[in-house]
Amino acid sequence: MNGEIMAAEIKEQPAVLDRILRDGRPRAQEAARSVRARRPRFVLFVARGTSDHAALYAKYLVETRLGLPAGLASPSTMTVYDARPDLRDVLVVAVSQSGASPDIVEPVNRARAAGAVTVAVTNSADSPLANAAEFHLDVLAGPERAVAATKTYTAELLTLFCFIEALAGRNSEEAAALPECATMLLGREEEVARLAVRYRFAEQMVVTARGYNYPTARESALKLMETSYVVAHAFSGADLLHGPMAMIDRGFPVIAVAPEGPGSASLTPVLERLRDLGADTLVLGDPALVRLGRVGFPVQELGPEWLTPILAILPIQQLAWHLARERASDPDRPRGLNKVTETW
Amino acid sequence: MNGEIMAAEIKEQPAVLDRILRDGRPRAQEAARSVRARRPRFVLFVARGTSDHAALYAKYLVETRLGLPAGLASPSTMTVYDARPDLRDVLVVAVSQSGASPDIVEPVNRARAAGAVTVAVTNSADSPLANAAEFHLDVLAGPERAVAATKTYTAELLTLFCFIEALAGRNSEEAAALPECATMLLGREEEVARLAVRYRFAEQMVVTARGYNYPTARESALKLMETSYVVAHAFSGADLLHGPMAMIDRGFPVIAVAPEGPGSASLTPVLERLRDLGADTLVLGDPALVRLGRVGFPVQELGPEWLTPILAILPIQQLAWHLARERASDPDRPRGLNKVTETW
Repeated sequence: MNGEIMAAEIKEQPAVLDRILRDGRPRAQEAARSVRARRPRFVLFVARGTSDHAALYAKYLVETRLGLPAGLASPSTMTVYDARPDLRDVLVVAVSQSGASPDIVEPVNRARAAGAVTVAVTNSADSPLANAAEFHLDVLAGPERAVAATKTYTAELLTLFCFIEALAGRNSEEAAALPECATMLLGREEEVARLAVRYRFAEQMVVTARGYNYPTARESALKLMETSYVVAHAFSGADLLHGPMAMIDRGFPVIAVAPEGPGSASLTPVLERLRDLGADTLVLGDPALVRLGRVGFPVQELGPEWLTPILAILPIQQLAWHLARERASDPDRPRGLNKVTETW
Repeated sequence: MNGEIMAAEIKEQPAVLDRILRDGRPRAQEAARSVRARRPRFVLFVARGTSDHAALYAKYLVETRLGLPAGLASPSTMTVYDARPDLRDVLVVAVSQSGASPDIVEPVNRARAAGAVTVAVTNSADSPLANAAEFHLDVLAGPERAVAATKTYTAELLTLFCFIEALAGRNSEEAAALPECATMLLGREEEVARLAVRYRFAEQMVVTARGYNYPTARESALKLMETSYVVAHAFSGADLLHGPMAMIDRGFPVIAVAPEGPGSASLTPVLERLRDLGADTLVLGDPALVRLGRVGFPVQELGPEWLTPILAILPIQQLAWHLARERASDPDRPRGLNKVTETW
């Protein structure tokens, strides 16, 4: 069957999250102890594609929950422009499913030589990236065969969460409910399949969110592009108001990712504006915000907002899968893509 | 006439660049002397919309030419989540045309309280942002009346360039040729007008670039969205290969911004892939790369690649203007937008 690999990997996620809480968390805590002793003052993330969205989530966590300034490195500054920044007191965290992309490995080699503490977060313990970094966190997702990453994304999110919480001296206990919540959400697949039909002929789409779930919006857009070939564009709610709102007209399809929490609540004026413009907005999240959309997928009691990105992406992975099937394309074999992207 | 305000502001740019080199550069150098004495070790930028693209350009400069790690702050972490990161030894540079958006002013207030050296880059010397920061750099663009920013964008780029070069102990002398180059490029408007016709019925578009001009691709997409309502999506060449390439099919309109230099040269495999997919690619830049596109706007001798973003955006501003007019919309009054965007 077309798409059975991606479908199976989506379904594995509760088990993967459980495995990380059991086996990955203690290892992340151990690495965090060594990293803390080095007293990093800044955190830089290096990643591309889906892993870049995991890094963006981690950047929010570093800023809000660890209290350090953080940035996403532009890999090309090192690989194309030969930049050699002073990285003493900097923690560099590289995130890559395969650990094989040269434009992630090379910046880690350089960062280590420039005095940074380096951590690799990968799904491959014997990858070049795992070997290049001083510390390695295995995301324990098991082999991922679908080109469109699903389980490795949520595994990266949870692994990064456990690591950053440990850096802040906490033990991630709020994460205990994640596997059960994930099972509950994935159990609503029929509802998602009905929603997917709505987008059969959509050629373009905007995905929006604010705060912790802005990375979810980015990852949602990427999943829709790579499996369903819809031109999906992610904006933070704030950026959407800075210009792109002009292109939204009556009936324009928008997906808002807004699980309960202050970030989502701050999306209210954006949703009101979209409603006034007649946009066709699907709100996934807080029932109070679902009322502002044209269609909704209400979700409640997912826990603190900082954990919701690990859950909110699940129905959208299913949506991308069902939409690809509605469009008679094979979610397991997106045209024009390879599993490992080699860029410099 | 529809669009005359934006057209006039586009034409003012050579004079604005000249004014910055004459009056702005010495002030940027003076501020840089004081900032250098504080020995910042990490640079964070705070910005939204067009100014965020200027900040992204500056981030590349900090990494490659100043040799410090840098990041783009997520304003919502401070305004929505009340984050209080430790910002000692951090230089925080806020960029905003109006200097009035609360979600830029508030992070600067907090950064200053948290020990950061703060610099505001605005077009308004008596704005809340200019008052909030310890140092203020006026981009000297004169009042900007069009909703779509043009001259304030290039003015921000050049002001940031002069400031960062001065931080690195250099005097920006390579920038001397910019006003003349800008005049030369803007003089090719008829060519641009003919290219604009091509996109009369395009509903979506991808803009791509790599390295220093990735911000140009982002700003190009924003101009096209806000004036012509085309759904324009910017990707770095590397990210385009990580998934979104799947949505590119035969005839898909792509604009590649690729003035001569190593960043653009690294776009070669992306352009070849687009050609093989049958994409309708317009290459603006290096004649050697123009050959890989379906249509081209060859540009030569713009100087070192790190300065080309100040020039490469000019024909695209004109393209956005002409396309808006072809589509019978008013470039001066994009639907649904205000000049100052108030988000929190």
